[in-house]
Amino acid sequence: MGLIVQKYGGSSVADAASIKRVAKRITEAKRAGDDVVVVVSAMGDTTDELVDLAHQISPMPPSREMDILLTAGERISMSLLAMAIANLGVEAQSFTGQQAGVITDEAHGRARIIDVKASRIRKALDAGAVAIVAGFQGVTEHTNDVTTLGRGGSDTTAVAIAAAIGANVCEIYTDVDGVFTADPRIVPNARKLDRITYEEMLDMAASGAKVLMLRCVEYARRNNVPIHVRSSFSGHLGTMVTDDPIEGDVPMEQPIISGVAHDRSEAKITVVGVPDVPGTAAQIFEIVAGAEVNIDMIVQNVSAAATGLTDISFTLPAADGQKAMAALHAMQSTVGFASLQYDDTIGKLSLIGAGMRSHPGVSAKLFGALRDASINIEMISTSEIRVSVVTRADQLDDAVRAVHTAFGLDSDEDEAVVYGGTGR
Amino acid sequence: MGLIVQKYGGSSVADAASIKRVAKRITEAKRAGDDVVVVVSAMGDTTDELVDLAHQISPMPPSREMDILLTAGERISMSLLAMAIANLGVEAQSFTGQQAGVITDEAHGRARIIDVKASRIRKALDAGAVAIVAGFQGVTEHTNDVTTLGRGGSDTTAVAIAAAIGANVCEIYTDVDGVFTADPRIVPNARKLDRITYEEMLDMAASGAKVLMLRCVEYARRNNVPIHVRSSFSGHLGTMVTDDPIEGDVPMEQPIISGVAHDRSEAKITVVGVPDVPGTAAQIFEIVAGAEVNIDMIVQNVSAAATGLTDISFTLPAADGQKAMAALHAMQSTVGFASLQYDDTIGKLSLIGAGMRSHPGVSAKLFGALRDASINIEMISTSEIRVSVVTRADQLDDAVRAVHTAFGLDSDEDEAVVYGGTGR
Repeated sequence: MGLIVQKYGGSSVADAASIKRVAKRITEAKRAGDDVVVVVSAMGDTTDELVDLAHQISPMPPSREMDILLTAGERISMSLLAMAIANLGVEAQSFTGQQAGVITDEAHGRARIIDVKASRIRKALDAGAVAIVAGFQGVTEHTNDVTTLGRGGSDTTAVAIAAAIGANVCEIYTDVDGVFTADPRIVPNARKLDRITYEEMLDMAASGAKVLMLRCVEYARRNNVPIHVRSSFSGHLGTMVTDDPIEGDVPMEQPIISGVAHDRSEAKITVVGVPDVPGTAAQIFEIVAGAEVNIDMIVQNVSAAATGLTDISFTLPAADGQKAMAALHAMQSTVGFASLQYDDTIGKLSLIGAGMRSHPGVSAKLFGALRDASINIEMISTSEIRVSVVTRADQLDDAVRAVHTAFGLDSDEDEAVVYGGTGR
Repeated sequence: MGLIVQKYGGSSVADAASIKRVAKRITEAKRAGDDVVVVVSAMGDTTDELVDLAHQISPMPPSREMDILLTAGERISMSLLAMAIANLGVEAQSFTGQQAGVITDEAHGRARIIDVKASRIRKALDAGAVAIVAGFQGVTEHTNDVTTLGRGGSDTTAVAIAAAIGANVCEIYTDVDGVFTADPRIVPNARKLDRITYEEMLDMAASGAKVLMLRCVEYARRNNVPIHVRSSFSGHLGTMVTDDPIEGDVPMEQPIISGVAHDRSEAKITVVGVPDVPGTAAQIFEIVAGAEVNIDMIVQNVSAAATGLTDISFTLPAADGQKAMAALHAMQSTVGFASLQYDDTIGKLSLIGAGMRSHPGVSAKLFGALRDASINIEMISTSEIRVSVVTRADQLDDAVRAVHTAFGLDSDEDEAVVYGGTGR
């Protein structure tokens, strides 16, 4: 008998019929002999609708109140799911983040889990019940205030609870069959991966693959929680995220490359005519950091000897573009740069694989494939298990396909049953 | 500087515009120097919509889960209201039933408040903030489970919090201007009462006046909390429910009659051919009580000497009619009655006034007025401050008008500004 955590996202519980379907799957797992804890998101677009409502009321809603508002969504989905399970003859109890003992820091809207006191969950399991837990929410330790975890919060809740109760696996149900070698909407013959390491998954997530959020994978890696990413619409096995060999694995050398990720959500800022003296780059990135903007890739041109000036380009989330530009403009005379350029028509391609560590020539093969496809590379960044390049946004799909083929990732079969895409 | 509790119902916070209007009223009270605690219901039809959703999932949702589901409604309205107040420059903090310290027994769906530990509310007030509290909900003392209080729950929450913090007054905002001598939709020249005693208000509520629920008035009376029933749509003073004289009261003998209530929600069951032996009536009412049905009025006919049989009629909430009939049918042979009659086309008129205690002839005047209006009386019940009669449902409005006029309650002026009716 196993102990499993299952997490269902908003699209899996969008309406009464979906909730009943999910309830059936849960009771099947329970009747097969497993102890089951379920983490659930708000139904469909509930959270977006509540945000809209708040903005009708106030342009800047206080974050404490916003969190109380948003947590209503999971309260609805979790109780309805418990009812649906009970209706199938299996006992179920739903728990808010607080009742489930999900303790967070006090950063409303983007709180971090600092502890899970899972005594009530354990008690429910001991009593033979399925425990349903509201994802995305917790409570502060001392003030007992409700917090939300921000994007990817429900996945993180599921992994945190799996770690706390020592679950055998954390199943993340989504609308795709697992983690693919590339987004199947762009590369129709992308292959589903049976297994991927935490490190590779982290790099995939950081590079734009949205099937799992970064923080959830970080939490799983730190606590060694195996994640099984699979579809709530089929019975297929999905992708195991784990550093351990999985059952049925043929012992063999790890493949070099696990996948090609892409990201269209970034923009590029170029600071033109920067005095090429020590400390200027640091000054620029301190300004951007001060605006609470995370930078991804950085390129500094070789300085033109005649002028003593250089250009610095960096990429950042396009959503933070305005904020960063405003912060830099305000400091233009202090830093002494000539001008700013903003470009949000870029795309980023990342090749990921723990195997590339020991295989030279990966970068060369990547650049060759892009050259053969007539795709211009604007920026490059490399790490031990990843190579990322920036291209024009409208060339990104071609770039992904070319690289996917060049590294032999294309599937022979037409196996990919896709309902959405890893890009969602 | 005073300390007031204001309670707003679902129709007062039905949408973003209404929430903003209520927020404005709250900030005005706060800026006038009062400390303000606000109790709020769920927006408009939210609760009904959640109930519908639950019944799409399960015909018999577990009551614990139902309570978690329903409390999402106040969570939404309270946080939005806090945002709206903050947007007007006044600090506001919202609190769930649990955070507000509303402790209840464990009767899910109809929990009773057993304590209010208002330390967080007091702390918010001390910090200069408006405290917004979710109505209708509480938490069990030992298991920390969420409960709902059932019908009239938000009014009861408001009175309980007013009692706990020692508020000067509990203002119940509604869609009518106060408590009237009769439902203004039936009696257009009904007068608004400036003041009514707890006892009279209890009898009004028990007799069908829906402006305040019975349990809320009981709680207020027990804790001597003055209630001010007033409209959220106007600035008019409403009706004070209190046993103390109110400011501006001219010392005078209390008027005999405070009002005429009516009720169309009851049905009548007649048990025909009951053996007229001791204990049979007790047996019948034990059966009905066993079905958890409350009985209102009872009439037993004089037994026909020839047969030794009698008829027993009683009234009950029409909503419980089927349940009571089924329970009685099941015991027909045991009790030995001949048959059952069910009649849900009855109406009940009640004349209420503490003054009638010391004024003989009130009943005679009531029966006379009904006779003059050609209205047949089917059942009669009297108490120290109330006389109730059952009539045909389609004669009830005429009966209310006739009695209202006969007791001199008609207003000279056309003052009643009515947005709904006391019957709601």
